[in-house]
Amino acid sequence: MIVHDRHYQTVWLEGDAVVLIDQLALPHSFAIKRCATYRETAEAIRGMLVRGAGAIGAAAGYGLAQAALQAPDAGWPTFARALAEARQHLEATRPTAQNLFYATRRVFLAATGAAPEVAAARHSARLAAQQIAAEDAAACASIGAAGAHLIGEGATVLTHCNAGWLAFVDWGTALAPVYAAVRRGARPFVLVDETRPRCQGSSLTAWELAHEGVPHAVIADNAAGYYMQRGEVQVVIVGADRIAANGDVANKIGTYEKAVVARDNGVPFYVAAPLTTIDPACSSGRDIPIEERPAEELTTMAGLTESGAVQRIRLTHSPARNPAFDVTPARLITGLITPHGIFPATAAGVAAALTAGAATP
Amino acid sequence: MIVHDRHYQTVWLEGDAVVLIDQLALPHSFAIKRCATYRETAEAIRGMLVRGAGAIGAAAGYGLAQAALQAPDAGWPTFARALAEARQHLEATRPTAQNLFYATRRVFLAATGAAPEVAAARHSARLAAQQIAAEDAAACASIGAAGAHLIGEGATVLTHCNAGWLAFVDWGTALAPVYAAVRRGARPFVLVDETRPRCQGSSLTAWELAHEGVPHAVIADNAAGYYMQRGEVQVVIVGADRIAANGDVANKIGTYEKAVVARDNGVPFYVAAPLTTIDPACSSGRDIPIEERPAEELTTMAGLTESGAVQRIRLTHSPARNPAFDVTPARLITGLITPHGIFPATAAGVAAALTAGAATP
Repeated sequence: MIVHDRHYQTVWLEGDAVVLIDQLALPHSFAIKRCATYRETAEAIRGMLVRGAGAIGAAAGYGLAQAALQAPDAGWPTFARALAEARQHLEATRPTAQNLFYATRRVFLAATGAAPEVAAARHSARLAAQQIAAEDAAACASIGAAGAHLIGEGATVLTHCNAGWLAFVDWGTALAPVYAAVRRGARPFVLVDETRPRCQGSSLTAWELAHEGVPHAVIADNAAGYYMQRGEVQVVIVGADRIAANGDVANKIGTYEKAVVARDNGVPFYVAAPLTTIDPACSSGRDIPIEERPAEELTTMAGLTESGAVQRIRLTHSPARNPAFDVTPARLITGLITPHGIFPATAAGVAAALTAGAATP
Repeated sequence: MIVHDRHYQTVWLEGDAVVLIDQLALPHSFAIKRCATYRETAEAIRGMLVRGAGAIGAAAGYGLAQAALQAPDAGWPTFARALAEARQHLEATRPTAQNLFYATRRVFLAATGAAPEVAAARHSARLAAQQIAAEDAAACASIGAAGAHLIGEGATVLTHCNAGWLAFVDWGTALAPVYAAVRRGARPFVLVDETRPRCQGSSLTAWELAHEGVPHAVIADNAAGYYMQRGEVQVVIVGADRIAANGDVANKIGTYEKAVVARDNGVPFYVAAPLTTIDPACSSGRDIPIEERPAEELTTMAGLTESGAVQRIRLTHSPARNPAFDVTPARLITGLITPHGIFPATAAGVAAALTAGAATP
């Protein structure tokens, strides 16, 4: 997508360097981080310079390809050992990120499938990593195409958290239909939930939209209902961290509240996600574990001082609780926007989406 | 209520000085502001050192009594002129605060009723101001008595914004039933919505509860639904800025969302308020104007640096919108907790509450 009139993806390969947008610096500065070794790439993943399911997966895939490109060619066993070590190192960075394991496994198998030819293994590893990134971008573009018609001329879309291109390689999920609609000439307006506690809405989503030239305004999470009550929101679109087999959706904390309020106002509520987000092993949202994160995410906050320095401040000394996700029951979801079309958030709809995905080459 | 093992009210008179808790300094420091003249008192109201309907009213009443106490005794006309001038000055501080006008009018009439005796006027003004404060505290105590039984042993109460004693003279409204239940031996736990954008929950409500020794935790506004879904909230109690004749309630932005989510989970949702909050001139919530406040309340934030200095930081450079209140429709409200008991949030219930109030001497 566009930043300063240039097209960027979240992460890419330049020679044998992994290059990525430093999301920790956003929205205050746009910085590109060049990781010269797979260990630096792993550090960027661990340190959350890159975050979001698709972006983490692509970065990890590139990181393992980078390890293959840089491992010494002193015979296959040495090469294979170096590759296994790099895989383990990368997988230890974010042990709960499903896409990370998918990517490292796929690149590892591509490389070792070329044994005992080190040169061929390097080639295959690079190709696999590039394919992972390309497939992620393509899936998100398809989500955009599938959902663009939901956004009428001049419609106001409400979104929560960041499920834009920064969370993937390109396009994003919840924002992909917005970007697609803009390219078709619709002029949507986006209300961006700030998304406390980490404020991914005001720091990432609003930043993305500004650079793409999409009119928008940040609102307190508390204000979403106010705008829906007044009939000023035509559709809500959010992303998903995990979708259960029955259509229940785990996503950033607060998503459930927006869904309930949308229902109270007759506003359609869509969840946009690639099929990899579906976890058929979870029969319902009750099976999805919810992470409780440190209270400091709520009780402290970072921003810019007047002189432009980044400063962290303490908002309160009170005890706090900080669940990171909640589960939106399927009954509140109007539809699941997938790369293969929009499906009802029901067991049958989820199964149909998976079938449509399996039928696509 | 209790701060550092001493009983405090939000505002009081010491000789001819108006003394108040500086709410701008909370939660980082507990500072008492001594206003030596009515102009200083007016400045404290304007500068929001004192905020909240009841506290503003009491401060304004004391401010005018202070003016009466300090006006030169050079005959009645001079005294009356000084008093009228002070009233005008005080009323210009927060022109939309209904309680402020009620208090200045009442103190003014008490003083001028004693004409032409300046000494008697001073006495009457002081007495009227003290009565206003005492009535506010008494009404809040009655709200506590009326609502305490809603909080069972070990119940978790969720509240939004600050409708505690800091917003009134003592006890508060939404928190009064909590404080009353604690005194009856119940051991409630309070989940405190942070209440973006101004964070009255984390900075005022949590601070109050800590000093009263009530166990609590601050949560992101987004997390209220999560705890309700899990059955961890037994009752929601909030305050009100204005109650329409049909039972609709205007309150801090986000209140409506909590009410919808409470309904979705079968959690009772109560609004606690004195009868002065009822505005019979508003037939429904549609008649209540909603103030949109500066975007900076959302895009910047103040807190403490590690060295303990207060610092304001900028969170985002994006455009923002900041409605300050929303309207919760009566259909979502389980009941109105008033000093005269709990009434249904219906036209009949509101009328009955007003009748009960009128019948009380």
